Amino acid sequence: MISQKWSKLIRSLQQKKYRKAEQLFFVEGEKSVLELLHSAWKVRAVFGTEQFLQQHHALCTKADLIQQCTEHELVQVGTFASNNAALAVAEIPVASPFKEQPGDWVLVLDQINDPGNLGTIIRVADWYGIRHVLCSSDTVDLYNPKVIAAAKGSFLRVKLYYQDVLPVLEQSTMPIYGAYLEGESVHQLKLSKAGGYLVMGNEANGINPALKPVISHPVTIPAFSDTESLNVGIATAILCDNLKRLSVSSMV
Amino acid sequence: MISQKWSKLIRSLQQKKYRKAEQLFFVEGEKSVLELLHSAWKVRAVFGTEQFLQQHHALCTKADLIQQCTEHELVQVGTFASNNAALAVAEIPVASPFKEQPGDWVLVLDQINDPGNLGTIIRVADWYGIRHVLCSSDTVDLYNPKVIAAAKGSFLRVKLYYQDVLPVLEQSTMPIYGAYLEGESVHQLKLSKAGGYLVMGNEANGINPALKPVISHPVTIPAFSDTESLNVGIATAILCDNLKRLSVSSMV
Repeated sequence: MISQKWSKLIRSLQQKKYRKAEQLFFVEGEKSVLELLHSAWKVRAVFGTEQFLQQHHALCTKADLIQQCTEHELVQVGTFASNNAALAVAEIPVASPFKEQPGDWVLVLDQINDPGNLGTIIRVADWYGIRHVLCSSDTVDLYNPKVIAAAKGSFLRVKLYYQDVLPVLEQSTMPIYGAYLEGESVHQLKLSKAGGYLVMGNEANGINPALKPVISHPVTIPAFSDTESLNVGIATAILCDNLKRLSVSSMV
Repeated sequence: MISQKWSKLIRSLQQKKYRKAEQLFFVEGEKSVLELLHSAWKVRAVFGTEQFLQQHHALCTKADLIQQCTEHELVQVGTFASNNAALAVAEIPVASPFKEQPGDWVLVLDQINDPGNLGTIIRVADWYGIRHVLCSSDTVDLYNPKVIAAAKGSFLRVKLYYQDVLPVLEQSTMPIYGAYLEGESVHQLKLSKAGGYLVMGNEANGINPALKPVISHPVTIPAFSDTESLNVGIATAILCDNLKRLSVSSMV
């Protein structure tokens, strides 16, 4: 059973102010909870079905508290419509300040609002070996349960930094690519050197005009029709794929 | 007001069997309803707020029935959590049989289950000018409201064909690419000719083994980490981007 105290705590963690106050968040579903338990992150509690706890007993001892509960309880305290495995409460790691990553790619997210989009982008960054994502302070919170669900464990391998992005970009000597509707085609692009920043803008308004002066390379995904836009998660994936392809070929 | 008769009909159209029986489906939200009204598709009815109907009066006369209603009514009969504009009921066009498209790209979807994924894929196909998508009979229905919502008007420009895909591929003389975890890297690929089929498999199980013998070119998106997989919508976008890039450069 999940105690009243824990139920109340977990439900409160759906809201950012309580996550901030407690410095805790939660992870739902078998796969993500297992990935969390395999990581070095500190896990305060695991609530799991009898089957889940039996199957992963040794791994679960990593958590300070292990508690058996029903599928119904998991659904009641969490955000999933169904959950036949587990939910874990973990500590939010202490934020480290962002440092420039010479020779590497860094994603910059300017006011991404949709939790599903941020989750997708984290998964894409992970696939392309991008370990650092710089987010404007008004980008949706990483520890939002919908972001964690969409990121599918990739949040454990990709570091997000929330801060004012303009000063970082202003001081950088690396190339700064930005996704625009009318930039250079990424199919034509040649890299001067591998690595740099890739700035992705808000779903509705694109990149903040205040950032425009620091974007050294506006880039565009060529369209083969008159469709107006791609979802920002999809666009990030396509741009990362092109930049990583060009990084490899420019090193040959 | 939306009459009882129409309310009941619209709600029933959330289910495939009623869409099939009535040969009708519905479209929700301002942008998609406007795109529908601008198309050549037959619109039976538009239900809109006072503001929507005033602003788009001329366009709405395309529908057999125009009816003013409240935002609350739109939410009650539809699937959106909020809808401050309109909902339209349209006729499902008569399906035409699939014909091979020499020199063009055709997407083949093998049992895509998630409505959001199918919607995303249709939007991607539209962006890359891919006008024909061949779907296995067990792929999720195009006229599912969640597919229509995710496709964002692109369903009006991309044709979907539901049928047994194996016979089509068996009889084709065009190259048949298939997304696998261990195929040739799309970053290394060279096209023998432009155009062909790109087969994308089911979210959990990949491409049906029965299709494997007809896949002439298994292809893979190179990973730059040990992440296990990308969402099928994202993977489709990246593969389409690479194939279109290669199609253009091979024609130069």
